[in-house]
Amino acid sequence: MLRLVSNAAESEEKIKAWRTKMLYIIGLGLGDEQDITLKGLEAVNKCHKVYMEAYTSLLSFGLSTNGISNLEKLYGKPIILADREMVEEKAHEILAQAHHDHVAFLVVGDPFGATTHTDLVVRAKKMGIDVKIVHNASVMNAIGICGLQLYRYGETVSIPFFTETWRPDSFYEKIQRNRLMGLHTLCLLDIRVKEPTLESLCRGKKAYEPPRYMTINTAIEQLLEIVQDREESAYTEDTECVGLARLGSEDQMIVAGTMKQLQLIDFGEPLHCLVIAGKTHPVEEEMLDFYRCRT
Amino acid sequence: MLRLVSNAAESEEKIKAWRTKMLYIIGLGLGDEQDITLKGLEAVNKCHKVYMEAYTSLLSFGLSTNGISNLEKLYGKPIILADREMVEEKAHEILAQAHHDHVAFLVVGDPFGATTHTDLVVRAKKMGIDVKIVHNASVMNAIGICGLQLYRYGETVSIPFFTETWRPDSFYEKIQRNRLMGLHTLCLLDIRVKEPTLESLCRGKKAYEPPRYMTINTAIEQLLEIVQDREESAYTEDTECVGLARLGSEDQMIVAGTMKQLQLIDFGEPLHCLVIAGKTHPVEEEMLDFYRCRT
Repeated sequence: MLRLVSNAAESEEKIKAWRTKMLYIIGLGLGDEQDITLKGLEAVNKCHKVYMEAYTSLLSFGLSTNGISNLEKLYGKPIILADREMVEEKAHEILAQAHHDHVAFLVVGDPFGATTHTDLVVRAKKMGIDVKIVHNASVMNAIGICGLQLYRYGETVSIPFFTETWRPDSFYEKIQRNRLMGLHTLCLLDIRVKEPTLESLCRGKKAYEPPRYMTINTAIEQLLEIVQDREESAYTEDTECVGLARLGSEDQMIVAGTMKQLQLIDFGEPLHCLVIAGKTHPVEEEMLDFYRCRT
Repeated sequence: MLRLVSNAAESEEKIKAWRTKMLYIIGLGLGDEQDITLKGLEAVNKCHKVYMEAYTSLLSFGLSTNGISNLEKLYGKPIILADREMVEEKAHEILAQAHHDHVAFLVVGDPFGATTHTDLVVRAKKMGIDVKIVHNASVMNAIGICGLQLYRYGETVSIPFFTETWRPDSFYEKIQRNRLMGLHTLCLLDIRVKEPTLESLCRGKKAYEPPRYMTINTAIEQLLEIVQDREESAYTEDTECVGLARLGSEDQMIVAGTMKQLQLIDFGEPLHCLVIAGKTHPVEEEMLDFYRCRT
């Protein structure tokens, strides 16, 4: 009798498990394949289809450095790279699969980090698909390693590449406000991946520009151009900053110094980001000292 | 000959490994023992002494729920709980060990998350000890799950328990500034662990108050008291907020609603935190809709 009850309970469990298919959105952290959490890896193991957001991931887990194949080896299953078009245009397909099967969508950093995946979550929920988030580190909290306290940051800004005809500088007011309040500013630097060429746009055939990642040097150059153009001084070339390259990787590089000093430094491979310091406290200064450039 | 060279290289490797003892500061993430990263677990495996910051961890990985023993089982070694006093007063002891041995210091969330460990890093570096950080999710980025975009947050505030004689409200101006700029405010709520009793302070014997964790309800009560006292209205009881309890855990609870609505909700066990929404965008609204309370 007990066995019968137990069997019934087991079947119910199975039916429930069969019904509750899941879309897992899994943060991979910032460094390499070893930065996934045990919980994330367990979720990947459950999934029949594993997608990976390719927009920023080509970089951290770059095809060039065998990053994707390292991930595939670790997971023991293939990964489908979902580029920006696929996520935006074919989200429906990915989500439709999650009706029948566990599906994993891998994201560099945290699912709700710098690049947000809110839209995918909203669509899934509207389709009645259960979504489970597996969190991980992202630039938004790992930046704390530079020594400037996370609760002393103001609004985060994104700095886009200037072109000859397009020089948006709305981020300037945000930096200005943060500095007036003595707050630090995290500047996320532009990433241009799979941008259609002008020619391809005209001819209707798809062809892409080579990927471009803004360096700390370019960011500072643009930042200083803005204050020059505006004849204002929310910051100057003597303002203290921290430049961070490949944050969270084995070969990360962190240097504190003035804009003028950092502009002379070669930070190497992407991704780069920049913090413009606000008012600093003694314990923050002590940490910055370890990173200060000795020029 | 080749073998000899290889042996020499191996010995050199061993000497190098022996010399480069390391203090690993390892983020455990927010949920349970499965939230450690593969990199973090590998680092723990290398260490002879494993300390764990007990200030917030007693909660997430609570002794009451066998959390610590789950961690010990996973690691296959004992964990030494380092309470606030130990970290502040006996950091030297912990660090002295890192001169001879690999030492792990486990931290709930990210090493540089809400509770910062900058001071331990600074001391270690001054003693010439190599420090390695293993990042993980923290409230500072996992809060993104509520749907309000991370780059639209202003300065984070901490809300302390009011007492009859001590009602600090400097966080009010920060919330006010954020709201004026249309930014969201993450409110971290007070944790009182191992607070000496008044009696123990007088008599010089150590005795502690039972731990206290601020609820969302208390936080809102205090927030509304402040605007009433000041006769100002940076926010009102009709201001939209999101209450989050046990963020990152299996039983996390997220509810969006006005202060008045959230005040009536029982969010259960700690930890709680609160977001006061600024100006919201349509995609943020869509996400909030999934969490909105139906009262």
